[in-house]
Amino acid sequence: MLVDGTPHRTVDWRDGALVLIDQPVLPHSFRLWTTRDHEQAAEAISTMVVRGAGAIGAAGAYGLALATRQAPDGDFDAYVAQAKHTLANTRPTAQNLFTGLEHVAAAIAAAGGGERPDDARDAALAAAQAYADEDAAACEAIGEHGEPLFQDGWGISTHCNAGWLAFVDWGSALSPVFKAHRAGKQVQVFVDETRPRGQGARLTAWELASEGVPHVVLADNAFGFLASRGEIQAVITGADRIARNGDVANKIGTFGHAVIARHLGIPFYVAFPSSTIDAACAGGSEIPIEERSGDEIAYTWGAADDGSFTRVRTTPLASPARNPAFDVTPGGLIDGLISEFGVFPASEDGVGRILAARAAKAAD
Amino acid sequence: MLVDGTPHRTVDWRDGALVLIDQPVLPHSFRLWTTRDHEQAAEAISTMVVRGAGAIGAAGAYGLALATRQAPDGDFDAYVAQAKHTLANTRPTAQNLFTGLEHVAAAIAAAGGGERPDDARDAALAAAQAYADEDAAACEAIGEHGEPLFQDGWGISTHCNAGWLAFVDWGSALSPVFKAHRAGKQVQVFVDETRPRGQGARLTAWELASEGVPHVVLADNAFGFLASRGEIQAVITGADRIARNGDVANKIGTFGHAVIARHLGIPFYVAFPSSTIDAACAGGSEIPIEERSGDEIAYTWGAADDGSFTRVRTTPLASPARNPAFDVTPGGLIDGLISEFGVFPASEDGVGRILAARAAKAAD
Repeated sequence: MLVDGTPHRTVDWRDGALVLIDQPVLPHSFRLWTTRDHEQAAEAISTMVVRGAGAIGAAGAYGLALATRQAPDGDFDAYVAQAKHTLANTRPTAQNLFTGLEHVAAAIAAAGGGERPDDARDAALAAAQAYADEDAAACEAIGEHGEPLFQDGWGISTHCNAGWLAFVDWGSALSPVFKAHRAGKQVQVFVDETRPRGQGARLTAWELASEGVPHVVLADNAFGFLASRGEIQAVITGADRIARNGDVANKIGTFGHAVIARHLGIPFYVAFPSSTIDAACAGGSEIPIEERSGDEIAYTWGAADDGSFTRVRTTPLASPARNPAFDVTPGGLIDGLISEFGVFPASEDGVGRILAARAAKAAD
Repeated sequence: MLVDGTPHRTVDWRDGALVLIDQPVLPHSFRLWTTRDHEQAAEAISTMVVRGAGAIGAAGAYGLALATRQAPDGDFDAYVAQAKHTLANTRPTAQNLFTGLEHVAAAIAAAGGGERPDDARDAALAAAQAYADEDAAACEAIGEHGEPLFQDGWGISTHCNAGWLAFVDWGSALSPVFKAHRAGKQVQVFVDETRPRGQGARLTAWELASEGVPHVVLADNAFGFLASRGEIQAVITGADRIARNGDVANKIGTFGHAVIARHLGIPFYVAFPSSTIDAACAGGSEIPIEERSGDEIAYTWGAADDGSFTRVRTTPLASPARNPAFDVTPGGLIDGLISEFGVFPASEDGVGRILAARAAKAAD
């Protein structure tokens, strides 16, 4: 998408390097973050320079491609295996990370691995590029399938950032919103600020402002009230991992919003590329939930009045904090799973149909 | 309660002046805020130097007592009426504010008003003092009635600040927690940070740390997840206004928490002194909901690393914000109303019984 008139991808490859948009400094600064080192790529993932399901997957894929270029010919396979381990251990809840890594690892193996390291390096980069291109195409298809669900004049709630900054391009939850807006529908987006890290306040709001989509930012607490007063007609979020039974792991707060939406009779949709499905996971209770540092609760980062990027502490020094980063929404609370293959029920059957469509496409 | 070993009330009268604890600078600084001018008292209420249902009521009562001392003998009644109007128009959702003002106004009238201004001044101050003392006593009684609802080992969630800083002393929602802790029960409090103004992160956490009650601060978004994992056995909040049918207006986010608690089968209690009941209000839909400045969403205040109290902006300059400050929780989602007269159902019948107990006490 465009930034100041220049096309960008969230995760890109330029001149032999991985190029990321430095997301923690948005929306106050726009900076690119470049590396040729897979350990730095891993650090970018763990410190959330890059975040969001699809973007993490592509960053992992390119990270492994970088590792093939760092790997010595004489110790290629062991080096790459260690790099894959390093990259995989950055974010335990991100299914796309594992998908992206496996995609590149399979290409490396198919090209001969350490027996033909130069072929393996070329294959790794091509696989990472293909992974990124497929992510962008899948997200645009999500937009086309999801857009008809939104009617002219609707208020649409979203949580966290599942826009193009969370993917390579287009986004998941925001892709149908962008499509609806471009199709001329009057929609207004109610953007949860998404404490503690503020991905909604910072990233979703920045994306919507850049695209000219009418929106308001609100405290996560305000969703229920505004929905109860008839201002919100649908909720759409992204997902970090989908279990086979339709349960969804996503940013902390998603579960509560789904409960409230069901109570009020408002449809609740989850949008994601099929790579987000973890076919090895039978149900949400199997998904490990990352607990992050309590400092993310105690301190809020932002732009000071002098423009500097800084933090303020809101809690007493004597008070500890808890910071689970994700929660699990049961499929029974979700009114539709929007994938690049269409809209499906959030059930074993629905997820199975998405996986079948994916398998059929792969067999083409 | 104690601050650094010295007893304080949230709203106090010393040497002819209203003395408040300056709450926006907590927990980073502890400052007293003193005035002899009712217009400054009104400003302290509207700018939330003092906040919380009971504390606002007492501040309004003392504010009107201050006005009687400013009022000239020759224009006493008109001056006091204007001051009452000024004080009443600071916070439209705060029922206790109106109760406190009416209590003092009635005492002024009974003492002869402008016909005997010195008697009226004495009566006003005595009425404000009595109002404050009654608030503190009612809050302690809430604690005694509510404490048996909490079992040893429970996790207890609370939203916003309904502790002693929200009242003259003891608090409403936190009073049973303080009583349970002092009775030797092991309870842990899950403190919602309570965006956008962070009353939980700043004030509730500070109160609990001061009292030595085990607690953790969490993003408002994390309540549903932690409750779904069995870490939370009850929710207790305060209230800004109670309608005759048991509907409750309270800090934004309360409604959503009640919906989630009901979904999970966790009891949800609302604690308040009976002065919070608005007998003129038939149901929650009649309660006006204050929308505050979007700057409260865009900027977060706190302590910078150098100790200065400052703010950071989290949203893009191009993004507007919505900031409803309260919501309405239907009585049907509430498992008990805890008042100074005991625990009652959140229904027309339950509220009627609280009002009857109050009337019987007043007739004593």
